[in-house]
Amino acid sequence: MEKTRRKDREETLKRLKQQMEFIVEVDKVKNIFRQTYLADGTRKENDAEHSWHLALSAVLLQEHMEEKADITKVIIMVLIHDLVEIDAGDTYAYDEEGAQSKREREEKGADRIFGMLPKDQGEMFRALWEEFEAYETPEAKFAHLLDNFQPLLLNDASDGKSWAEHGVHKSQIYKRNRRIPETSAIVWEQMEKIVEKHIQKGNVKDIPR
Amino acid sequence: MEKTRRKDREETLKRLKQQMEFIVEVDKVKNIFRQTYLADGTRKENDAEHSWHLALSAVLLQEHMEEKADITKVIIMVLIHDLVEIDAGDTYAYDEEGAQSKREREEKGADRIFGMLPKDQGEMFRALWEEFEAYETPEAKFAHLLDNFQPLLLNDASDGKSWAEHGVHKSQIYKRNRRIPETSAIVWEQMEKIVEKHIQKGNVKDIPR
Repeated sequence: MEKTRRKDREETLKRLKQQMEFIVEVDKVKNIFRQTYLADGTRKENDAEHSWHLALSAVLLQEHMEEKADITKVIIMVLIHDLVEIDAGDTYAYDEEGAQSKREREEKGADRIFGMLPKDQGEMFRALWEEFEAYETPEAKFAHLLDNFQPLLLNDASDGKSWAEHGVHKSQIYKRNRRIPETSAIVWEQMEKIVEKHIQKGNVKDIPR
Repeated sequence: MEKTRRKDREETLKRLKQQMEFIVEVDKVKNIFRQTYLADGTRKENDAEHSWHLALSAVLLQEHMEEKADITKVIIMVLIHDLVEIDAGDTYAYDEEGAQSKREREEKGADRIFGMLPKDQGEMFRALWEEFEAYETPEAKFAHLLDNFQPLLLNDASDGKSWAEHGVHKSQIYKRNRRIPETSAIVWEQMEKIVEKHIQKGNVKDIPR
């Protein structure tokens, strides 16, 4: 009995230490900067800030989704969806060359980073990340909507700065967002309006009429 | 029937627009910097990064809490716990002068910021923030543990930089963390070990022996 208790305590302590190391390791995403500017346009945002913003938005926007999703799962999914970038780096949404090697780089990152955790927790995070990438479940669709809608809101607030800098074309935005209408018709309407506004402003390119 | 549907749609759209404005407004916490340095010591972290880190840690550390807590509630609580600082600013944990006016400044912030949301959502966030502040429920206790443990891990990783800069005393750390042992004995053990290490290193002050 005493021996079992000691062994349990050792196991718990081992888990806690792995969790502490993981918590310190993932601090690195605070230094992985994205191409989106903050709303005030002063600097680009990083993956930790982005993930926080998605998680908070998930709580608010769930009522607009066409399919019911498990909100806790969505939140955890968005909290961890960019951790692989600690090793793989951020690949800009419209970087086609980078996109080719992205999956391989990110899988290696997932192996190492999620592998730092106690087995059950590492597997849970890995499964959530794979589910996000597969883009099939209501939770993954909601997470992708958040992942696309939040930078669009920031691009709008910062007067289309990132779009203009990268010479982004309307067709690229539509291609990237092609599955948003099925996820939430009403959110997509607002997204379209914002894109149209920035075409008028010249921040987003369109084919000549 | 048609009229009801139109009214429902108008109400939904109004809610979505309020939510969008709120999402852009809270972007400001990315510019509210705390006294804690990132693990690599290169710069201080901001409230958005901190909140993301707590939410992620909540998922991992729940097994070590003495009382069972609703994890979704804890996560949402930590995601929003610092939003009032958009108006009130960050008050350093060991700033006793600032602490006196803190509550009043933060309440005004809560009124304005949560007041931007649809009534039900604003009230939900306000209630969660009040619950956090009251520090009574298992969820609030877990959230406070996270709010104290995460900066301690970062202070440790950045070699006690923030403690040394502020001349922090062991008694201040113990006072701030006095309710951690009842929340999680095993986490508190690790916290004590870290503090002891930094007393030995001279980063945290102790009374002369």
